[in-house]
Amino acid sequence: MKKLTTSTRGLLSEIKDEAAEMPVSERRNFLLKGLQLTAGSAFAMGAAKVMAETPARSNVPAWTKKLGRGVVSVPYGQPSKYEDDVIRRTVSWLTASTESSISMTPIHEMKGIITPSGLVFERYHAGLPDVNPDEHRLIIHGMVDNPITLTMDDLMRYPSESVIHFLECPANGGMEWHGTQMEALQFTHGMLSCCEWTGVKLSTILDEVGISADAKWVLAEGADGATMTRSIPIEKALDDTMIVYAQNGEKLRPEQGYPVRLFNPGWEGNTSIKWLRRLEIGDKPWYQREETSKYTDLMPDGKARKFSFIQETNSVITSPCPERPMLRKGVHELEGIAWSGRGTVKRVDVSLDGGVTWRQAKLKGLVLPKAITRFSLEINWQGEPLLLQSRSIDDSGYVQPTLTQLRDIRGSNSIYHKNSIHTWKLDTDGTVSNVQLG
Amino acid sequence: MKKLTTSTRGLLSEIKDEAAEMPVSERRNFLLKGLQLTAGSAFAMGAAKVMAETPARSNVPAWTKKLGRGVVSVPYGQPSKYEDDVIRRTVSWLTASTESSISMTPIHEMKGIITPSGLVFERYHAGLPDVNPDEHRLIIHGMVDNPITLTMDDLMRYPSESVIHFLECPANGGMEWHGTQMEALQFTHGMLSCCEWTGVKLSTILDEVGISADAKWVLAEGADGATMTRSIPIEKALDDTMIVYAQNGEKLRPEQGYPVRLFNPGWEGNTSIKWLRRLEIGDKPWYQREETSKYTDLMPDGKARKFSFIQETNSVITSPCPERPMLRKGVHELEGIAWSGRGTVKRVDVSLDGGVTWRQAKLKGLVLPKAITRFSLEINWQGEPLLLQSRSIDDSGYVQPTLTQLRDIRGSNSIYHKNSIHTWKLDTDGTVSNVQLG
Repeated sequence: MKKLTTSTRGLLSEIKDEAAEMPVSERRNFLLKGLQLTAGSAFAMGAAKVMAETPARSNVPAWTKKLGRGVVSVPYGQPSKYEDDVIRRTVSWLTASTESSISMTPIHEMKGIITPSGLVFERYHAGLPDVNPDEHRLIIHGMVDNPITLTMDDLMRYPSESVIHFLECPANGGMEWHGTQMEALQFTHGMLSCCEWTGVKLSTILDEVGISADAKWVLAEGADGATMTRSIPIEKALDDTMIVYAQNGEKLRPEQGYPVRLFNPGWEGNTSIKWLRRLEIGDKPWYQREETSKYTDLMPDGKARKFSFIQETNSVITSPCPERPMLRKGVHELEGIAWSGRGTVKRVDVSLDGGVTWRQAKLKGLVLPKAITRFSLEINWQGEPLLLQSRSIDDSGYVQPTLTQLRDIRGSNSIYHKNSIHTWKLDTDGTVSNVQLG
Repeated sequence: MKKLTTSTRGLLSEIKDEAAEMPVSERRNFLLKGLQLTAGSAFAMGAAKVMAETPARSNVPAWTKKLGRGVVSVPYGQPSKYEDDVIRRTVSWLTASTESSISMTPIHEMKGIITPSGLVFERYHAGLPDVNPDEHRLIIHGMVDNPITLTMDDLMRYPSESVIHFLECPANGGMEWHGTQMEALQFTHGMLSCCEWTGVKLSTILDEVGISADAKWVLAEGADGATMTRSIPIEKALDDTMIVYAQNGEKLRPEQGYPVRLFNPGWEGNTSIKWLRRLEIGDKPWYQREETSKYTDLMPDGKARKFSFIQETNSVITSPCPERPMLRKGVHELEGIAWSGRGTVKRVDVSLDGGVTWRQAKLKGLVLPKAITRFSLEINWQGEPLLLQSRSIDDSGYVQPTLTQLRDIRGSNSIYHKNSIHTWKLDTDGTVSNVQLG
C-alpha cells in the first residue's frame, strides 16, 4: 500500500481515456465507475457486484474465522506492522554526525492537523539526553525578586493551558535555497509538526518571581550536552510563551524535551529550548553561539539578519507529491497544508500552471492560529502535465512570496526561513517531481 | 514521580499550617513560598536561592556532560522510560477472557483534549484481528443502485474530512450502578478517549452508490471473529457518520479498527464498528445480538430500552482523584473533563460539599462539539474534608443528573449509560476515594 512499485505506476497506462471529454457534472459517476473498474486487480465491475451481493456467505477472510489478540497484550499501543514504512528519516550526507543532525516527519502520510508524537521530527545539537525527571530542576533567576528552583511536581501545580500549534525548524526547506535537490516532500518540508502542547504560561511564572522593571530579555538554556541557549525578548515571554511538559495528551516525548521545554508559538523551533534547565532574566540579549554564528540569516551584503524569530506563512501541496503520485486520471482531491507563525491562515490559492492563474482552495476542518491548516481543491486530471503550486495568505496580510521575490531580498546564502512558493511538476504518467520556478 | 509512595504522602504532615487563616489575596505569594520550601527534599528556601544564583557553574547534571542518542535511533518515537506506568489497564475479574474484554485509558494522566493513540482504551468481542490492508475490502450493498467493493486505495481517493471527537464505551462507569467498587479514575471513567479522526463522510459514499428511497437503516459489520454488527438509522448515516482510516494524524491503530472503521460522533462506541467490512442498506433494523441481548438498557420493569445510541453529557474531576491526591495544602487548580454526545459542553459547575452549593468552573482551551472539554476551578484547600462533584450542561440544555435522578428512571439493572454526577471524597490527609451520594 505504501511503497510505490513499478507495477503500481504501470496501472496508469492501462486506464482508458474515456473521461477525457466528460463534462464536470458527470465526474462523480465517473469516480464511482473508476472505483469499480479498479477495485482490486482481480475484480472487473461485474465481479465486484457479485461479491457485494453475497458478502456474508463467501469471501470471508481468514482473520474473521478466529480469535484475535487479547487486551493489554500491548499496554502502550503501536502502529500496525503494515505501516512500518511511515517513519522519520534522515539525510545521511547532511551533517557530520547523527548527534548533531535532524530527522524529518513523513508529512506526505499525515492526515488532519495533529502530528503523532512518534513521528515529530528530531533536531539535536548534542544528541538526545536521558533526563531523569525526579532529578531535573528548572532554575529561574537573574533580574527577579525571588529566584526559584522548581521540581517537575512544583511546575505541575501551576494552572495549565493546552494549545494546538505547529513547531517548525527554521532550516525547513533550507536545502533548496540554491536549487532543487530533495526529491521527496518528507525532505523538502519534513522539519514540521503540529501538536497539542500543555504546560504553564511563562508569564504566570514570571509574575510569581517578580521581574525587574528593567528586564528586557530572557535566556533559556537546555540541559543537553550542547547546553543550547537562546535569548527571548520579554514581550514574547509575557505574551504566549509556555513552559511545556505534555504533548498530544501525554508527557513530552524525550525527543521533544522531556521532561520540560520552552515553547514559543509561531517562532523558529530552535528558540523553544528542549530539556529546559534555566531561565535567566536580563536587560540585553546574550548573543550566544546559536543566535549569532547559527540561526541568523546571511544576507547578500554579507551581514547577518539576527533574531529572525517568526516562521512566516508557508504552504505545500501534500497530495500529489513525489511520494504520492497520481495513480489514475479523473477527479482527485488535491490537498495540502498551510501555516503561519504570525497568526491564522486566511486563504490559500492553488495554481495548476506554475503561478500564471490561481484558484482559491477550500480550508478544511479546524483553522487555528499558529497551527497547520489543511486546504483542498477538486481537480479533474486527464493526464496533462501540470505545475502545481500553493500560496498562503495569513490574517496579517502577509502573502507567501515567490522564490524570486524571496531571493531578491535575501539572496541565497542563508539556510533559514525559506518559505517561498513550492512547485511540484506533475508529469503525464502521474509521477511528481520537485522543480523550481521564479 | 508517578506512583504515590508512603513517604510522599508523609510530606503532608510536615507542611506548616501557616496559611490556614491567610486571605485569598495572598495565595499567590504562598504558592511561591510553598514551592521554595518543598522544591526537593534537600532544599530549604535559602539553599534553593543559592543554587539559583550560580546555575551555570555548579550542579551541572551528568546528562549535560556528554553526547546523547543520535537521530533515528528510534524511527518511530516512544514515551520516556520514566513514564512506563502510564499504560492501559484491565480489571482481571471483569470478563471471562482477554479476547472479550476491555482495557482502560489512564485519564488521570491525560492532558489537554487529545488522547494519545497508544493509550486509547481497547474493547474486543473476539480479540484484535490482524487485518492485511491490501487484502481488506469494504462492501457496500443492499438497497442501493450500484453496490461496490472498495479497496483501501479506492477509499482514500474520496474527499477526506478530519474531526476531533470523543469515543466512549457505553459501559463506561457501568461497574458503579449498584455501588462504588472501583478505587481509581482509570477504572471508573477510563473507557473514554478523544482523537482527531480522518476519513470520508458516509453520506459521500451513499450518494455515490445511490440508496433506495425506502432505505431506513444501515447494517455495519466488522471483520473480527465476532463479526460485530450494529444497525444505524439512515438519518445518522446521512448526517455525520464517517468511514475513518486515520487517527491523530496517522493510520488507525490496530486496536481502533485498522485499516478502516465506522465512526458515529457522540454515539456509543460499539456502533462505530471496527475493521469495517460491510455496510448493508435496508429498510428496518436487523436486531442483531449486540443490539438486543447486549447494548440495550435493562429497565426496572424488565423491558429493554433499545437503540440508546447517544452518550449523554458526563463529567468527572481528574485532579484530584484517587491516583492524584492532594500533596499539599494551599491553592490548587482543580481540573476535570466534560463531554456530550449531543453537542457542545456549555457549562460545568463544581461542588466542594457534595452538591449542596455549586460554583461555575472555567472551560479551558478548545471547546468543540462531541469532544472532551477541560474545566478548572482554583481552590484554596486547607486540609478540610471535601466532597468533590462536577455537573456538566450541554448546549441542548441537558443537565447531568444525580445518581438518584438517574436511578429513579433507569433503576440499577443496566450496565450502560451511567452518566450521573460522580463524587470524590477528599480526606484531611489529601487522599481521594470513590463514594456515592444521591
